[in-house]
Amino acid sequence: MGEIHMEKGERIDDIGFGDFKIIQKPEEFCYGIDAVILADFAASFEKGRKEKVAFDLGTGTGIIPIILTHKLENSFIHGIEVQEESYLRAQKNIELNHIEDRVNFIKGNIIDIDKKYFDSADFVVSNPPYMEGESGLKNANQAKTIARHEIFASLDEFLYIASKLLKNKGSLYMVHRPSRLVDLLHFGRMFGLEAKTIRFVSPRTGGIPNIVLIQFVKNGGRELKFMEELIVYNGEEYSDEIKRIYEK
Amino acid sequence: MGEIHMEKGERIDDIGFGDFKIIQKPEEFCYGIDAVILADFAASFEKGRKEKVAFDLGTGTGIIPIILTHKLENSFIHGIEVQEESYLRAQKNIELNHIEDRVNFIKGNIIDIDKKYFDSADFVVSNPPYMEGESGLKNANQAKTIARHEIFASLDEFLYIASKLLKNKGSLYMVHRPSRLVDLLHFGRMFGLEAKTIRFVSPRTGGIPNIVLIQFVKNGGRELKFMEELIVYNGEEYSDEIKRIYEK
Repeated sequence: MGEIHMEKGERIDDIGFGDFKIIQKPEEFCYGIDAVILADFAASFEKGRKEKVAFDLGTGTGIIPIILTHKLENSFIHGIEVQEESYLRAQKNIELNHIEDRVNFIKGNIIDIDKKYFDSADFVVSNPPYMEGESGLKNANQAKTIARHEIFASLDEFLYIASKLLKNKGSLYMVHRPSRLVDLLHFGRMFGLEAKTIRFVSPRTGGIPNIVLIQFVKNGGRELKFMEELIVYNGEEYSDEIKRIYEK
Repeated sequence: MGEIHMEKGERIDDIGFGDFKIIQKPEEFCYGIDAVILADFAASFEKGRKEKVAFDLGTGTGIIPIILTHKLENSFIHGIEVQEESYLRAQKNIELNHIEDRVNFIKGNIIDIDKKYFDSADFVVSNPPYMEGESGLKNANQAKTIARHEIFASLDEFLYIASKLLKNKGSLYMVHRPSRLVDLLHFGRMFGLEAKTIRFVSPRTGGIPNIVLIQFVKNGGRELKFMEELIVYNGEEYSDEIKRIYEK
């Protein structure tokens, strides 16, 4: 491996999974707990299965593929990212972690993805922008804006592309805000992605959920199963389950 | 009021709201906690507003209109019931409670409701059958089967008719099983009923929800608000909130 060139403002963070590290630029965007619990959610379903080809739609600097490489032994993950700087940083993260044979990053808008990938994915993950589409950029910091707002692709497009990429009965694992639940379940069904398992995430016991994790199955049957709520904090520190998620 | 004729197997139950009582036939069907918490959920939104015309789709023996008569001062409620014995019992319950001027029961299938009622409802409530449609009756006891299975109308028809009955921006309050959540939100949106508020109900703290309460708004905006979970039991007895619901 050659020397990795670090840009001004970039830093290398230890992510707590094996020896994996990630280059991020904090003033642009850092991954959050959402990405980590999504990767764990997906891995809990896909673990132990045979070799898996997966896609991460809107991969940012590649945190989800990196974690999945750690959590799933036999996976190959394509991460797609539209934002140039994030994509370049993701490429450096492949080198940094020596996972060239496990991860491939594609620069581009998910809606323009090469049709050769259709019907090829065993599973898809996505931590898409949470805010509804905006015409034009609202924020001077473009990377952050793209990561948070549906500028290049809207939620229905994320679900549509996920459905196209998946093999029959393959799963999409998505993290989003509970306030978008109607969109998630409605667009999912419209595109043949039936929500099968749902898990709400609340900061504290008895609180209002602020994150939702959903497993959709392409052409799945119509019955939604609920998991126990995932509680993030116990007093001032992380709950035991969050600690477990960050340790494995 | 004349003497109310009681059939064999019928009994009069005190329902705990004011002096209201209800005639039920336990071997056929008795109302459950779902109806009671639905009525409270609807009343919490509709309370204090001006005179209200409402419909209860699948009213059974009329428990929801009776509770709403107690909880909402200025309401007039039409209850629709397809099952003959339940309808006749509902009629007797009007007499028993002296609410002839507040409640009207209509015998028939909701999907055949007179179009003169379209666009007339300030709100609609429904505790529909929870089990998916069946062709033909599975259970010797027809009243119970009709109350529990989508024999005469399916969930999408309940939502369709509710949408037709409602005035613009009027609310449908529905109780159902969480496993049907995709159907609820998807069919709702299909018929212009946007889910706006959701409340899950769990037997115990940290448990899996087994009931869901949803407020849909006709032509409402796209954002779903979550309420704190409603917990039914605290140890061996009802939680404080359930006690409050049964007292008011």
